Amino acid sequence: MNERPDRVEIFEVGPREGFQFEPPGIATAAKIRLIEALAETGLTEIECVSFVNPKVVPQMADVQEIARGIRRRDGVTYNCMWLNEKGFLQARASGLALPALTSGSASDTFLLKNNNRTPERQLEAQRTLRRLYSDSGLGSGPVYLFTAFGCNYEGKIPVAKVIQRAADLVAICEDGRTPPTCITLCDTIGAGNPMQVRSLVDAVRSRWPDYPVALHLHDTRGLGIANAMAGLELGVARFDASVGGLGGCPFAGNRAAAGNIATEELALLCDSMGIETGIDIPALIETARLAEDIVGHPLPGKLSKAGTFSRRA
Amino acid sequence: MNERPDRVEIFEVGPREGFQFEPPGIATAAKIRLIEALAETGLTEIECVSFVNPKVVPQMADVQEIARGIRRRDGVTYNCMWLNEKGFLQARASGLALPALTSGSASDTFLLKNNNRTPERQLEAQRTLRRLYSDSGLGSGPVYLFTAFGCNYEGKIPVAKVIQRAADLVAICEDGRTPPTCITLCDTIGAGNPMQVRSLVDAVRSRWPDYPVALHLHDTRGLGIANAMAGLELGVARFDASVGGLGGCPFAGNRAAAGNIATEELALLCDSMGIETGIDIPALIETARLAEDIVGHPLPGKLSKAGTFSRRA
Repeated sequence: MNERPDRVEIFEVGPREGFQFEPPGIATAAKIRLIEALAETGLTEIECVSFVNPKVVPQMADVQEIARGIRRRDGVTYNCMWLNEKGFLQARASGLALPALTSGSASDTFLLKNNNRTPERQLEAQRTLRRLYSDSGLGSGPVYLFTAFGCNYEGKIPVAKVIQRAADLVAICEDGRTPPTCITLCDTIGAGNPMQVRSLVDAVRSRWPDYPVALHLHDTRGLGIANAMAGLELGVARFDASVGGLGGCPFAGNRAAAGNIATEELALLCDSMGIETGIDIPALIETARLAEDIVGHPLPGKLSKAGTFSRRA
Repeated sequence: MNERPDRVEIFEVGPREGFQFEPPGIATAAKIRLIEALAETGLTEIECVSFVNPKVVPQMADVQEIARGIRRRDGVTYNCMWLNEKGFLQARASGLALPALTSGSASDTFLLKNNNRTPERQLEAQRTLRRLYSDSGLGSGPVYLFTAFGCNYEGKIPVAKVIQRAADLVAICEDGRTPPTCITLCDTIGAGNPMQVRSLVDAVRSRWPDYPVALHLHDTRGLGIANAMAGLELGVARFDASVGGLGGCPFAGNRAAAGNIATEELALLCDSMGIETGIDIPALIETARLAEDIVGHPLPGKLSKAGTFSRRA
């Protein structure tokens, strides 16, 4: 498959990325309001919160309250994230949807510095989680490979190593008879470029022709939307993105660094290429503005400042 | 030519775009300092000022002082812009380089609302200017076509009309035996998308296989760098860009709207594709930060916040 898809699924990760990154103090009601507004824009999958230790990430102290408070809309999946067994058990109790996530890092140094785990320890933890998922009645879920495009410590990671790290995670899923629903290549620190998107997507597809590739792109260095375009041209049909570019990049060394590509800009790019997303772009722009109001500062996305270009010949 | 160029020329328009857009009051010395810093980054062509009516654009009241004050660096062209005969005569007296510019607008409504000219009047003015250029000893220069990707009043402009408007300008150049050095398609309000880049570049090339196409892209809606990538893949080898994204889009209806694509991000994209620009990216990032200091607020560019990703495998 080496051509534009007819339709792209955009997985909205703004609430989780943003509420985690912004300073503590955003009202729970405001968080819920943003999630509910996103659900009105045609997005069908929203990552609401992360079940992490509130002593470490106080911004996530109200996750159960958020999970309970969201007024559900039919056809929308409200899901969440976790990093370990304890987080998963809290997530399981929350009533949110549970994507059975198996994750790892292409960069060993990044994994050690940010999660304090060796690759072996990470794989062991993923095996334990995968068993727990199956015991909890969960089927297949996505594989997420962080720092696939490089990290600040190791620089670019050789493609062969990226594939090896992905293979370890895929094997855990296959061993549990729950083959991955997709392999998501994450540009965790925004180190990627369009050539790399091509080489990595090609390499993953050559190895696993049956598993869809997804992209989680950060716009830390301004190339995010060009990377997305490279993915679209290759037929990648699933992307993570964040409304208004909500969130940031804690690994870039400063708070001003941009985070995920902005959902409304990705939707505009898709629309301009004749690719369906199901998203109401003006409604999503309004929601990006709501997100700016909630966090109290401008977000990196540009479309929400300018507004749509509505007239077309 | 339907492949990546080996080398791309980037024409830095930040000082002119930015000093015109920012509120009055930036010190002349600071403007000169920015231009001099840009000249140290490997950029070889810098648009310093615009010769316009200082009663209308008070930010440009110090243009002659800037022109006199810049310490010149060998190998760098310091040029300028004008919109009419009077502006050209001032430019000619300034000692700055004079690109013999022939310009027009794809959108008639935009031309009327922003320049108070009908298409006929615009062509007449360009003919007069072109004669004046030749009388002043100037040879060929670029054709600039504004709003080639659409405008807020007319929406997208049909390709046939874009080509017609370009043809009128090309004819003026050819009639004076000064065929254009390039045809620059301007996305004046950031309405463009990669598909449009392809269709317009193809159309211009089909009509004028011998004249290079250049792109002047705005990032008003977040697609600027994807549009640049589309151009690079087609072999476009000349782009206008603005350090840090300095400048804005007065036509988007609000001051927060982003302007030109950021020079350092375009340079990074080129570099990642193996395309030479001659630009020292870390030095240009430092200059983007200097530009932020000078204007006193963050600029839209993202790379200058995050810094380069220096390590490579």
